[in-house]
Amino acid sequence: MSYDEVIRLALERGFFSPSSEIYSDAPAGFWEYGPLGLALRRRYQDLWRRELVRRDGMVEIDGSLIMSKSVFTASGHLQSFVDPIVVCKKCNTMHRADRLISEKTRQPIAEGLSEKEFDELVARHAIRCPKDNGELGPVRKFNMMFRVGIGPSDEDAYLRPETCQSIFVDFPRLYKVMRCRLPVSFAQFGKSFRNEVSPRQSLIRLRELYQAEIEVFFNPSKANEFPKFDDVNDYELRLMSDSGVKSVSCRHATVSGLVPTHLVAYYLAILQQFYEKTGIDMQRARFRRLEDNERAFYSQFAFDFEVQTSLGWTELVACNYRTDYDMKRHGGLSKKDVSVYDDEEKVIPHVFELSMGVDRTLYCILEHSFAKQKERNVLKLKPPLAPIQVGVFPLVNKDGLPNKAKEIFDNLKYDFDATYDDSGSIGRRYRRIDEIGTPYAITVDYQTKEDGSVTLRDRDSMSQKRISSADVPHVVKRLLNGGVFSS
Amino acid sequence: MSYDEVIRLALERGFFSPSSEIYSDAPAGFWEYGPLGLALRRRYQDLWRRELVRRDGMVEIDGSLIMSKSVFTASGHLQSFVDPIVVCKKCNTMHRADRLISEKTRQPIAEGLSEKEFDELVARHAIRCPKDNGELGPVRKFNMMFRVGIGPSDEDAYLRPETCQSIFVDFPRLYKVMRCRLPVSFAQFGKSFRNEVSPRQSLIRLRELYQAEIEVFFNPSKANEFPKFDDVNDYELRLMSDSGVKSVSCRHATVSGLVPTHLVAYYLAILQQFYEKTGIDMQRARFRRLEDNERAFYSQFAFDFEVQTSLGWTELVACNYRTDYDMKRHGGLSKKDVSVYDDEEKVIPHVFELSMGVDRTLYCILEHSFAKQKERNVLKLKPPLAPIQVGVFPLVNKDGLPNKAKEIFDNLKYDFDATYDDSGSIGRRYRRIDEIGTPYAITVDYQTKEDGSVTLRDRDSMSQKRISSADVPHVVKRLLNGGVFSS
Repeated sequence: MSYDEVIRLALERGFFSPSSEIYSDAPAGFWEYGPLGLALRRRYQDLWRRELVRRDGMVEIDGSLIMSKSVFTASGHLQSFVDPIVVCKKCNTMHRADRLISEKTRQPIAEGLSEKEFDELVARHAIRCPKDNGELGPVRKFNMMFRVGIGPSDEDAYLRPETCQSIFVDFPRLYKVMRCRLPVSFAQFGKSFRNEVSPRQSLIRLRELYQAEIEVFFNPSKANEFPKFDDVNDYELRLMSDSGVKSVSCRHATVSGLVPTHLVAYYLAILQQFYEKTGIDMQRARFRRLEDNERAFYSQFAFDFEVQTSLGWTELVACNYRTDYDMKRHGGLSKKDVSVYDDEEKVIPHVFELSMGVDRTLYCILEHSFAKQKERNVLKLKPPLAPIQVGVFPLVNKDGLPNKAKEIFDNLKYDFDATYDDSGSIGRRYRRIDEIGTPYAITVDYQTKEDGSVTLRDRDSMSQKRISSADVPHVVKRLLNGGVFSS
Repeated sequence: MSYDEVIRLALERGFFSPSSEIYSDAPAGFWEYGPLGLALRRRYQDLWRRELVRRDGMVEIDGSLIMSKSVFTASGHLQSFVDPIVVCKKCNTMHRADRLISEKTRQPIAEGLSEKEFDELVARHAIRCPKDNGELGPVRKFNMMFRVGIGPSDEDAYLRPETCQSIFVDFPRLYKVMRCRLPVSFAQFGKSFRNEVSPRQSLIRLRELYQAEIEVFFNPSKANEFPKFDDVNDYELRLMSDSGVKSVSCRHATVSGLVPTHLVAYYLAILQQFYEKTGIDMQRARFRRLEDNERAFYSQFAFDFEVQTSLGWTELVACNYRTDYDMKRHGGLSKKDVSVYDDEEKVIPHVFELSMGVDRTLYCILEHSFAKQKERNVLKLKPPLAPIQVGVFPLVNKDGLPNKAKEIFDNLKYDFDATYDDSGSIGRRYRRIDEIGTPYAITVDYQTKEDGSVTLRDRDSMSQKRISSADVPHVVKRLLNGGVFSS
């Protein structure tokens, strides 16, 4: 499916749409979740919590979005979270210098170049404005954090550019009060903010985004003493190599050095297992180990989990070995002791991170699930992710059928996301819920008045069977939890 | 329970704590949810969705937090969302002029006074700095919205000060694509931001807060043609009058004019019914109709839902009749047609709003639920709201009991928020979960090895009974859904 078709679905069926949409000054890079997009995100979040947070016994928090200046002095974002920008002297359009250079040279650009080094690259490769071929001005660095002023005295604070900083700052208190021991993982699902120079492609590059981040705190001398690794020993990671993507068992990946430690292999494995359950097509997914010049400033090695869409390979999760960089910096600037005891050893924990872009993941799920068939569009979401779980319809809008259907609907609506619809032909109503991914439909017809039975329709096979109306909640629940529809 | 005891519980048990806590420049008014506070908020949100959103068939959205300047030009916030502030000439301390005046005069202050009118009141009542009795400078108005600059060109945008503006701006699109008809209600659970001059009392007055807002769109000529009113006809609202709080049926309240319309009475009723299920003590709750000079600038009449705590009466929900103020203003500034057809009539919908402060509600739930008993502290949360739903313990840490207990725990942990604990005496472990409101505990003992049975303990009665370990998930689920514990 193409990007345009996903966007049409999103706009016309209430998945997502631009923020401040009715105004001409609506800033780019801000999107809203409508009722279906929100429900999809909620279910995705529930699955994430079940398959990662609860499975691994993580400590989940919800930090404030605005944090103090010191937090980002320590984290390095005030100095290093910058984009090199450049303005065309002729048309005044702003560009990202690194993008212009890498588009021209077809090479990635190293992290951390100075403004002067960028100017030299622009000159060496004779780069000009892509719009009108105008000459470009000097490169300047633009910090991508949003500043906010606190109180009438307007003190500096910032919207967090990544959720993990809340975790690092709260770690000393929570490690103690939650009675943790190393290794321990913390998790957070929430908003982050990045003042991108060129936001684009709706949910793919936003200025306000949802992240789901997991920070694993561990003693670096014990990254291979990790009993949970046994659970994934034989599980095969999809690892990119020079000869393409290969499925490699966690055991082999760690023995051969493709993945550095048992701890890292375990978290890559449970991440991939989670993604299998989201409906992302695993044949179009891979872990790619980043080159040295691709990594963020805090990262010692990194794997990206990438998925192929109509927009190309898209990074969904950045898996970074952040070392003790963050904890050391926070300990140093705050002068608080951030070390913990691991048995008898006092250690500043190292951190391995799984940083998931939620919005773009939802985009990929939609694109991988959407199919145009002969007579219908159908969104083949996995039932546990469906925003509307069940539709309830009277076959016709008379003879008491609507009353019976409403009764069934009222009996479902507290426990399920259900919809009632009595307008248009029954075929049209099926098409409508097919397109938004509703996996099951209940239809009340004339036979219902005789024997109390209703039809239960399955979205994917379009087959139907009759069940007792009294069994509806129970049957729908079983199916949504992975039960098999047998006609 | 006192405020200090709730805060001690919050800090020491992982409910909530100050943001950026390890730094001395941590701004006031920002708090984080730890694992238990987050779980409590999630369950509260689930209950809200069930008892209000799904019950009423609301359209729920999740809007971006940063919105364009035009949104707040239209909403009136750029002009009117201001606090009058004043600085002591001697000690430079900043104060809210309206607070100083009303503390001195013991009268509420009218909304919308000019800076000059405030200066006159300060002079007339001879108001001086409460700290050092210094003379006060001139009153100036401080806008409580947080500005953010978008992109390298730093264009004006704002963090939303109330979630409802997303709903108003999205209404034209969503009314159409979600195939709505009047009356229809929209809902949103999310963050808002208010740059308070004096944030205080932890979750009570925050600069970054969760709101759960419901906006009911209706044809003003039909506010008494509202069939759902029949559901609450006999239900009694707790309405404050000159002679105290009286329980008044919705029928009587509307006939007597205490509540203006059937539509308003219905929404006040389902709101109160929802709060009954949260564990707030209804004997300490009331609706209070606001005086003319207490209302926000967009409100034609208003009821506050207030709850009594150790801090006095606290407003938890503001119920405002916003008329067509917002939709008219957005339609006017955007030049978009925001009217809809109601049968044959073209109408700009009027809005009745239920604006709920989530964080302070959670504070009240904690305070109303916390009890000091002879031998223990116990948080008597309603089971559907408990952050940790079940504890699993081996009676002693030997003889294979931990293995069996872990097996039961592993079988629960995906579907429940469960905890496993094997450290300290069993009595101490019960005390630990009593204090965080866990309603049920499973203990594995020597009899478990013989017949597979475990003890199930009830938090409130502290009574125990034996059940089969195979029945644990089923029994815990039934109890959490409101089943009765019978020993």
